[in-house]
Amino acid sequence: MFELLLTDPNSKARRGRLTTRHGVVETPIFMPVGTQGTVKAVSPAELRELNAQIILGNTYHLFLRPGLEILSDFGGLHGFSRWQGPILTDSGGFQVFSLARLRKITDAGVHFQSHIDGAACFIGPREAMQIQAVLGSDIAMLFDECPPYPCEKEYAAKSLQRTLLWARQCKEVPTPGAKFGIIQGATFADLRRESAEALVEMDFDGYAVGGVSVGEPEEEMLAAVENSEPFLPAQKARYAMGLGTPPQMVEMVARGIDMFDCVLPTRVARNGTAYTGHGTVNLKNACHTRAHGPIEEGCTCPACREFSRAYIRHLLKSEEILGLRLVTLHNLHFYLNLMQRIRTALEAGTFAQFRREFHTAYSASPQLGEADD
Amino acid sequence: MFELLLTDPNSKARRGRLTTRHGVVETPIFMPVGTQGTVKAVSPAELRELNAQIILGNTYHLFLRPGLEILSDFGGLHGFSRWQGPILTDSGGFQVFSLARLRKITDAGVHFQSHIDGAACFIGPREAMQIQAVLGSDIAMLFDECPPYPCEKEYAAKSLQRTLLWARQCKEVPTPGAKFGIIQGATFADLRRESAEALVEMDFDGYAVGGVSVGEPEEEMLAAVENSEPFLPAQKARYAMGLGTPPQMVEMVARGIDMFDCVLPTRVARNGTAYTGHGTVNLKNACHTRAHGPIEEGCTCPACREFSRAYIRHLLKSEEILGLRLVTLHNLHFYLNLMQRIRTALEAGTFAQFRREFHTAYSASPQLGEADD
Repeated sequence: MFELLLTDPNSKARRGRLTTRHGVVETPIFMPVGTQGTVKAVSPAELRELNAQIILGNTYHLFLRPGLEILSDFGGLHGFSRWQGPILTDSGGFQVFSLARLRKITDAGVHFQSHIDGAACFIGPREAMQIQAVLGSDIAMLFDECPPYPCEKEYAAKSLQRTLLWARQCKEVPTPGAKFGIIQGATFADLRRESAEALVEMDFDGYAVGGVSVGEPEEEMLAAVENSEPFLPAQKARYAMGLGTPPQMVEMVARGIDMFDCVLPTRVARNGTAYTGHGTVNLKNACHTRAHGPIEEGCTCPACREFSRAYIRHLLKSEEILGLRLVTLHNLHFYLNLMQRIRTALEAGTFAQFRREFHTAYSASPQLGEADD
Repeated sequence: MFELLLTDPNSKARRGRLTTRHGVVETPIFMPVGTQGTVKAVSPAELRELNAQIILGNTYHLFLRPGLEILSDFGGLHGFSRWQGPILTDSGGFQVFSLARLRKITDAGVHFQSHIDGAACFIGPREAMQIQAVLGSDIAMLFDECPPYPCEKEYAAKSLQRTLLWARQCKEVPTPGAKFGIIQGATFADLRRESAEALVEMDFDGYAVGGVSVGEPEEEMLAAVENSEPFLPAQKARYAMGLGTPPQMVEMVARGIDMFDCVLPTRVARNGTAYTGHGTVNLKNACHTRAHGPIEEGCTCPACREFSRAYIRHLLKSEEILGLRLVTLHNLHFYLNLMQRIRTALEAGTFAQFRREFHTAYSASPQLGEADD
């Protein structure tokens, strides 16, 4: 399903192509997160206009609500949500460990209480894959235990063995799309290697680095990827789960990662924070009160094409829904467009230059709203 | 500015045309309410797609936030909000009386505290018109006192005299667009007549029936219109402020009203209530859990063209912004389309039949979600 088109001569960055049942995905790619069957504040039509190629759905959330009976009745998440492009679903493991109450983990799976209504639930490796089959996922993630940060090595090793046991069971459950294994091992290089080698031995369609973006420092996040990537086959897609800031994604691309998902662009938008090539901007700040300019000069997103920062700030201060929608559209455009620029740079052989210039500009952070009006 | 195209032979209903600085408005018309410079949850582009012809802005809200300095800097509300069609602004009177704190009313105007930050403010007749001039309103409403319901006749008469005094002062203040007078007089037929005759004598571009939709029973609302309308010239537009439900609007059209504004379609949408030709539907109800059909069969709105009731219900139950946006789009379409159907019926000479059939269907209220899936 993955075609490696080229590798950057100066880094591990790759330009690739994923072919799924619902369409082709050009990598490196950012996947907007549609936790509950919608990317927060935007419509499927808007995602298409933003050139989103693939979105993420959350197995845990959708299993609890609306539930499998309804999703099955609609032929899966595509039919229910009307997003017709590719969908990757996580396995539910991460949410079970971060959201659910009264968890009890055994080698069979996880007993937990729904965070919505307290209902007693169980998800094990077979259930996770069966749910993703009902969702009609184009890329299903294996059920894994995601250890916290920090984590003792003894527990990390024990947890890894359980994740590998589950991986073997997940492999046996038929799903309509591809299956990606998830590399765990916390902050321990030997465990990361063991995890990667064992999963590669089982032969999945792609591999994800999990257990990152769980509160660890950035150097640990980079190390987790660096300690996993060398043991992954070049001809399979690599996905860093739950990452990250724009500079982190650029660095992850340089370390050989092809796919990203992150709630940051949609979550911070709802607080009025926008991404620009010069870093983040808080649009609620007083400096934007009379700013005629767009969020970012030259940006082609639906918010910047039409609206001033002053108007968007007014909407945010007035708690109007249109405000957070406009910032969400801008941020998703920024993330998606960043990946487009990376793909273009890789094709042009200029990724090293792009990487350098991106970091310089992003960390320069001039005070937007003061200079350009 | 108003052209009376035809009058229904069986009622007082009229088909007309308003010409404003920002475009032509075919009447009868519903005006979506953009309280704080945006119609809640929808974008200017979506309003255009819904064929909204004119929207309403709230002088009180916009005066407090973002304030006149910024609005002036952007050349008014059109430049600030990017809605390029006609805008009617209320005078701020209604909000001063319903929202502001510590009001003190004199013949000079109203001292009040901002409901946002408690700041001491003053709006009198001259200020109200000057604010609307800054907003660049295409139709400015005169500053009036809106008495509560119920109201003693003595106070209603005294209040009316003040409103008429203010009307004379408002007339003297130059504004770029048209000016509409507001008929008050509470529930007293003789005061309504006095108000209408005095305003007509002053010669404004149109006349509104105010002091309705303030908690009075429906028969009092209809009576207020019936007691005002006979004293209004046929060649000027008539506007019933803050109304109403779909059947109320049909009845107001039959009583000679040309223009409506109401927060109902946008406000109830945010609670999951949708308008249909068979009455309102609460989309959160369990009967919609597995409903494949749209909110209303045959509806051409953006929500009904693409999404099932089951999906919209899921979004509402999950408190996803897309849910209330889709119901808002549907409800605005319903209100705007109802006026389009009325205009078509008037042109075809079938308004009496339309009126009868509309009420029969609307009150029939079959259980949607049970029959059609």
